Amino acid sequence: MKIYQYPSKDQWAELTQRPVLQKQEISKTIANIFSLVETNGDAALLELSKKFDAEINNISVSKEEIERAYEMINEDLKKAIQQAKENISVFHASQKEEVQKIETTKEVICWRESRAIEKVGIYIPGGTAPLFSTVLMLAVPAQLAGCKEIVLCTPPDKYGNINPAILYAAQLCGVTQLFKVGGAQAIAAMTLGTESIPQVYKIFGPGNQYVVAAKEYAQQYGVSIDMPAGPSEVLVIADEKAVPSFCAADLLSQAEHGSDSQVIFLTTSLSVLNETIREIDEQIKLLPRNEMAQQSLNNSHFILLDTIEKAIEFSNLYAPEHLILATENFEKYIPDIQNAGSVFLGNYSCESAGDYASGTNHTLPTNGFAKNYSGVSLDSFVKKITFQHVSKKGLKNLGKTIEIMAQAEGLAAHKNAVTIRLKKNI
Amino acid sequence: MKIYQYPSKDQWAELTQRPVLQKQEISKTIANIFSLVETNGDAALLELSKKFDAEINNISVSKEEIERAYEMINEDLKKAIQQAKENISVFHASQKEEVQKIETTKEVICWRESRAIEKVGIYIPGGTAPLFSTVLMLAVPAQLAGCKEIVLCTPPDKYGNINPAILYAAQLCGVTQLFKVGGAQAIAAMTLGTESIPQVYKIFGPGNQYVVAAKEYAQQYGVSIDMPAGPSEVLVIADEKAVPSFCAADLLSQAEHGSDSQVIFLTTSLSVLNETIREIDEQIKLLPRNEMAQQSLNNSHFILLDTIEKAIEFSNLYAPEHLILATENFEKYIPDIQNAGSVFLGNYSCESAGDYASGTNHTLPTNGFAKNYSGVSLDSFVKKITFQHVSKKGLKNLGKTIEIMAQAEGLAAHKNAVTIRLKKNI
Repeated sequence: MKIYQYPSKDQWAELTQRPVLQKQEISKTIANIFSLVETNGDAALLELSKKFDAEINNISVSKEEIERAYEMINEDLKKAIQQAKENISVFHASQKEEVQKIETTKEVICWRESRAIEKVGIYIPGGTAPLFSTVLMLAVPAQLAGCKEIVLCTPPDKYGNINPAILYAAQLCGVTQLFKVGGAQAIAAMTLGTESIPQVYKIFGPGNQYVVAAKEYAQQYGVSIDMPAGPSEVLVIADEKAVPSFCAADLLSQAEHGSDSQVIFLTTSLSVLNETIREIDEQIKLLPRNEMAQQSLNNSHFILLDTIEKAIEFSNLYAPEHLILATENFEKYIPDIQNAGSVFLGNYSCESAGDYASGTNHTLPTNGFAKNYSGVSLDSFVKKITFQHVSKKGLKNLGKTIEIMAQAEGLAAHKNAVTIRLKKNI
Repeated sequence: MKIYQYPSKDQWAELTQRPVLQKQEISKTIANIFSLVETNGDAALLELSKKFDAEINNISVSKEEIERAYEMINEDLKKAIQQAKENISVFHASQKEEVQKIETTKEVICWRESRAIEKVGIYIPGGTAPLFSTVLMLAVPAQLAGCKEIVLCTPPDKYGNINPAILYAAQLCGVTQLFKVGGAQAIAAMTLGTESIPQVYKIFGPGNQYVVAAKEYAQQYGVSIDMPAGPSEVLVIADEKAVPSFCAADLLSQAEHGSDSQVIFLTTSLSVLNETIREIDEQIKLLPRNEMAQQSLNNSHFILLDTIEKAIEFSNLYAPEHLILATENFEKYIPDIQNAGSVFLGNYSCESAGDYASGTNHTLPTNGFAKNYSGVSLDSFVKKITFQHVSKKGLKNLGKTIEIMAQAEGLAAHKNAVTIRLKKNI
């Protein structure tokens, strides 16, 4: 944990720097896996599963497994997942765009219509946390958008099973095909298609460095991906009215994600700074993942600044995935927030609300990508097609302009497509 | 030109295939150029300009050059550019999103706000056509979005000058910095920054294979790009009421772009098919770029199908950049169009209308990318940030759901961020 009091602006560039990610040279491994999957299809997936996850006979999930999952989940968890699903649905449905026909010139009508990306793939990692919440965050907007095929791949545990909450969430949110496949081979399978797994047009979801590298690699095949990936991060801005125990809890909820998680705390109050650190020391003791959280905190920055305005400026430079504004009168700072993935306003808007259930998406740009990427939304699952209808009169109104411009660009056939129409008397 | 009559569906996969692009091994060249620009900045740009474009002393454009450009352009072209700009502005302004606050659970309020990507780069190629229309298509939405820095790079001609129409359009549309730099080095400069050229967050615009490869390479530095690139293409669907001379003109206006342009013609009428081919043979004679057009036509497909419905199905499989629907009752086919960049409806909606002046954007997904990418729009120049405000009561309403889900994912600190707030009596 590094503490800075009123660092000068010269230091900001360094303080907003992310730790350099050790990009291991795994591109050969990834290329190999793609080649194996391309050649041997499902058989390659079973072989790789045996090596990395579990020995299974079938990558498909049986009806019985799904039924069993329903029985294994208690009613409280089912209700919680349903409420989260409902909120995510309501918020993402509000992102549907009305068709607006615009007459740009008399009788020249232009508009956009959204169409679902027909086939999408969702990757859900295995590992220490069964991320069924990510199933909701990706499958709910996919279903709302109208994607016809929603393919989900997730690795089986060592007994060959998938976490029942993942199965339950997948069923609830309209996943159309679900497979027990993990790692880079899952990405390869959704990119190339196998006997069982359909080829998709866009792949979503988090994963380890192999999955991330495989998603990058998949783009060479024309597949698109949700966004580039990096470790998760939060930046908390607190004034003197902030509650240190809340701030500490939010910082820890980020830190427990992994040892490479980024945590930044900016405050205008020395006592809030000191109290928050004290609270962290207390709260961390009770956490099962406290070692991971401690490692992450070792690299964190706690910074005292003069004003909230300066803190916002710092935050814009850092472009955090999550920004918590634990200040009074937070409304007045909103227009100044330029770069952030998702913003949590006031003392009771904890990051975990957005992580699970408030309705916003938790798939967000990390690693400074909030400067040029949005988080996942309904938009991520559609293309917007432009349409235009130009009547004969409309072309008369616009034709000369097109002809002059085409001529000036030296594109005679472009000009002629107008001229020939204006001449024709039909 | 290849003609197919009622090909069976088995053949469609092959007929909708793009020619395989010869991706030359230029990655070393690109890496070298990036390294040169990183090390030597402006000096590297001048040196590379001398090698590829022109010997110049300064990559900046002087006031005098801009004034001269204003004088060199005739009033008709100025007016045409202004009308096009107006239409593009009106259409793209309609894409601004209203902020909609959604109460997903009582006292849990979520919404999105758009923020401009602060620094964007536009690349405009030199070569055979001075694409000032592309300046409009990229700078107009950038300015509407509120991008603070709009940097434009374009190569000088052999005399060290920039086409006056490009200078005029850039001035008119709020480009903030304009540089005489072309090729991969322009992309490297906007990615890395030099003494003169600012580093940007997102790069837009067409270019040759070096530019395309450089844009791909730039992404490794965290820069995002508009979309992957391929040769331009049109698919025309014509019924028996279509006008063969119009169809021919549209196909030729695509074919003149370059020898690798893609042209596909689908019709339900043998006589329209034959007449269109006859018209092409006539019209092509008059084109200055007829050799290029002929080469492109050599690879084109002319296909007779039973029904317009089948033609739409074929088109969805091909996912054309431009789709012209030269049919009666085109409205009824609109809902079935799934994959296309931009659609032109009826006999008078020629592609050049959208290329220049109707208001829609002409930067569109090629090479089948219309399956998973949208064309450039106002959205391309903003990020959408989610916000949420959860009141104390709101957290009471939602808290249990968050706690149960966090617990089930094994993330105790996520749960604790809620628990600690619900317990606190402030």
